[in-house]
Amino acid sequence: MYSSIHFNAKPRAITNASNPEVLEKLRQIVGAENVLVDPDKVEPYGGDAVKEKFPPEAVVFPESTAQMVEIMKLANEYVFPVTARGGGVGYTGGAVPIDGGIVIGTDRMNKIVQINADDLYVVCQPGIRTFDLQQAVEKHGVFFPPDPASYKDSYIGGNIAENAGGMRTPKYGNTKRYVLGLEVVTATGEIIRTGGKTEKNVVGFDLTGLMCGSEGMLGIITEATLKLLPLTETTSTVRASFKTMEEACKVLTKFTPAGILPMAMEVIDKHCIEAIEQNYAFGLSKDAKAILLIAVDGSNEEVAKNAETIERILGENGGFDILRAKSKEDEDKLWDVRRAISPSLMKFGTLKINEDVVVPRSKVPELVAKVEQIGKKYNIFVANFGHAGDGNIHVNFMCNREDADSIARARLCVSETFQLSVALGGTISGEHGIGYVKAPYMDYAIDKPTLEIMKGIKKVFDPNGILNPGKMFV
Amino acid sequence: MYSSIHFNAKPRAITNASNPEVLEKLRQIVGAENVLVDPDKVEPYGGDAVKEKFPPEAVVFPESTAQMVEIMKLANEYVFPVTARGGGVGYTGGAVPIDGGIVIGTDRMNKIVQINADDLYVVCQPGIRTFDLQQAVEKHGVFFPPDPASYKDSYIGGNIAENAGGMRTPKYGNTKRYVLGLEVVTATGEIIRTGGKTEKNVVGFDLTGLMCGSEGMLGIITEATLKLLPLTETTSTVRASFKTMEEACKVLTKFTPAGILPMAMEVIDKHCIEAIEQNYAFGLSKDAKAILLIAVDGSNEEVAKNAETIERILGENGGFDILRAKSKEDEDKLWDVRRAISPSLMKFGTLKINEDVVVPRSKVPELVAKVEQIGKKYNIFVANFGHAGDGNIHVNFMCNREDADSIARARLCVSETFQLSVALGGTISGEHGIGYVKAPYMDYAIDKPTLEIMKGIKKVFDPNGILNPGKMFV
Repeated sequence: MYSSIHFNAKPRAITNASNPEVLEKLRQIVGAENVLVDPDKVEPYGGDAVKEKFPPEAVVFPESTAQMVEIMKLANEYVFPVTARGGGVGYTGGAVPIDGGIVIGTDRMNKIVQINADDLYVVCQPGIRTFDLQQAVEKHGVFFPPDPASYKDSYIGGNIAENAGGMRTPKYGNTKRYVLGLEVVTATGEIIRTGGKTEKNVVGFDLTGLMCGSEGMLGIITEATLKLLPLTETTSTVRASFKTMEEACKVLTKFTPAGILPMAMEVIDKHCIEAIEQNYAFGLSKDAKAILLIAVDGSNEEVAKNAETIERILGENGGFDILRAKSKEDEDKLWDVRRAISPSLMKFGTLKINEDVVVPRSKVPELVAKVEQIGKKYNIFVANFGHAGDGNIHVNFMCNREDADSIARARLCVSETFQLSVALGGTISGEHGIGYVKAPYMDYAIDKPTLEIMKGIKKVFDPNGILNPGKMFV
Repeated sequence: MYSSIHFNAKPRAITNASNPEVLEKLRQIVGAENVLVDPDKVEPYGGDAVKEKFPPEAVVFPESTAQMVEIMKLANEYVFPVTARGGGVGYTGGAVPIDGGIVIGTDRMNKIVQINADDLYVVCQPGIRTFDLQQAVEKHGVFFPPDPASYKDSYIGGNIAENAGGMRTPKYGNTKRYVLGLEVVTATGEIIRTGGKTEKNVVGFDLTGLMCGSEGMLGIITEATLKLLPLTETTSTVRASFKTMEEACKVLTKFTPAGILPMAMEVIDKHCIEAIEQNYAFGLSKDAKAILLIAVDGSNEEVAKNAETIERILGENGGFDILRAKSKEDEDKLWDVRRAISPSLMKFGTLKINEDVVVPRSKVPELVAKVEQIGKKYNIFVANFGHAGDGNIHVNFMCNREDADSIARARLCVSETFQLSVALGGTISGEHGIGYVKAPYMDYAIDKPTLEIMKGIKKVFDPNGILNPGKMFV
């Protein structure tokens, strides 16, 4: 069992994947040039954004569903772990081969099969970058709403496997809301086809929904049909400062009576503001103990009107230093404070433990206040920012990579923060997933009968337990 | 095995549910007054909108999750079928106890637990009518988008179990898009809790998604947390006639470049128009071979602007006799033609076999043209209408209840129409589900490995096969 934050590489595991016969067969399936085994070549495939390294025994790059089937059949025959990997930018080790075996890189399966703007869907392979997919479909006047922060590096397959979130969730929802159908190779090398090309489809159990967020434990996605929406004309952003976090979060509920559902509603807490000011001197007011960034999208007229209404509502509810973007350039500038957070926080420690708890959004002030107490209790600097509109807050515990004691104390903070989130009606992960990092905390959020059902489902798809072992359940 | 359209009542089955010991224990659990056994009292619980009757041995009305647990434990101990029932208005027999046993009526579990407009969710029991729930939340300035046609009679539990659709799907998606969390009693009497209160939640496999559309085969929903949206200010509708179905459907793609995503896009084919005119004499043009009804929602200004744009686009693309609603009353009148379809069709036969196939929307003209050929081949009058915006078309084969041969021919039409829908990239049910009526056709749409996974999942939740037997798989 591995839990979060130990920052040690594990020696390379030896499983049947290292059997020369297996390696030879893998080379036959995908071609010798698409199997990596040299230690320095496989090393980058042993970690993700958590930055812990568990190097695989081999990295294999299939280019087709047929090859994926052959690989999985081989893995079942010889019984070795298989971990699928997209962009490798996850925060919970979902694509990290902690028990060794092979990593399947989906990099070569990066094609767009069909963009159908008329029917509002796109068919693509799992290895395409989210950003590239977005760019490609937008040329056709349609867009793919999910926008995880890592969208320039993440792959669509990983986004689906993790049910990725992002900033546009308050209006558009998570990745799973846009997955219409999937082609999946199961652990036993069967091809299954879930869903289809239409939003309406009630034929059998919803395996599409089940695959979304299943973290590569039930099958490997080889093709996805994704729902698209008509591209909106424009966006705008309004930024405001508040004297308290409570005031800031209360405003979020005031847009509903105005019939406005903002695309993004981001919050920055006083510790982040302090850090930003120390590092960038944006000239933010000393009275600013919380900042809201509210973005809207739609037609030019609608956006102008809604941004104005939002500006007024912010002002009527304690907001000050209110700035409303009147151009794309303006808008980009308003977001500079958001982008400044991460680099600024690094002045408070060499290690930022970034959790992504979620609570009903009205509980965000209580969450933030209590997290501050937790930080004080363990003498850990903590700063919060994130997706206030959907209650998904990034809680950042700052410690030092070289200071084992600070890391141990931060771990206690993490554990208490997870318990707090659940107590407030939320849960331990809003968008990062469980992987191996949060696996020890699953029972904070999921009761035993529900966990047993999940484990039963895992067995249906993967009787030999070869797909992404060591994740989610401990 | 039962397949659609045989219109015979089955004699009341005798299972262990009829054991006097079982009936006594059921009375102890829910109170004697909440157990029905008299033939005339259980009879209404033996059918749904399909109008075939399979009377249960008893109907039981629990009022709490605890009672549901006890019932399921009893059913497992004595092994008898249990079928959950909401409003009983399904089109595929999902709530019909075809193998006998007990029906669990959720009628007494009809409370709203919490309306939280600030956090945009509502917690409710399964037995509340969809319409009642909508009315209740709208008082708080928020709304629940799913709107199946039967919303005045359907229960939320049934809507979730069937993943109900409706007219607003092009913009808002199906019921499953609004289910955040569930409390479920499994077949073995365990309580499981899926999801939570937030859109963002990536903790374990998405059992919430899996429960949606599972047709009461995996568990009985005892509480649901549903996502709400800010209530929009107003709606408007534009109606237009077209000379061909093809022309009408092509227009649907023209709203995308204008950045408009209509809430509803309904189509009526020439046979429906003919039937309506014969019965109601609306004065529709003789040239009208297809009618489109396009509805938009949003702020007053947005709706006015979008309705105008839609009116213009319809006119530029072959639409004529274009009417744009300028008041609620106006709007209601425009929809009269849609409401007139079902009663008008009944002049063409005493039995309307209403299928709900779905195809990518650009394939609707081809679907409708080929369905007409199928009707001709078997000498069955066929008329089509429905949700063109999402490709979900109601194909109505008109035959006579007394004419066995016409029914047999209509069944052949149904079978060929299902094959056609799949061949066009669609599937055999968009919103009605499978139940027992479409179970014989599952393999038209779902391949064997995928079916096997579904059956495996069923076993995880319901090892003894007591929940809603005879549905989905044959």
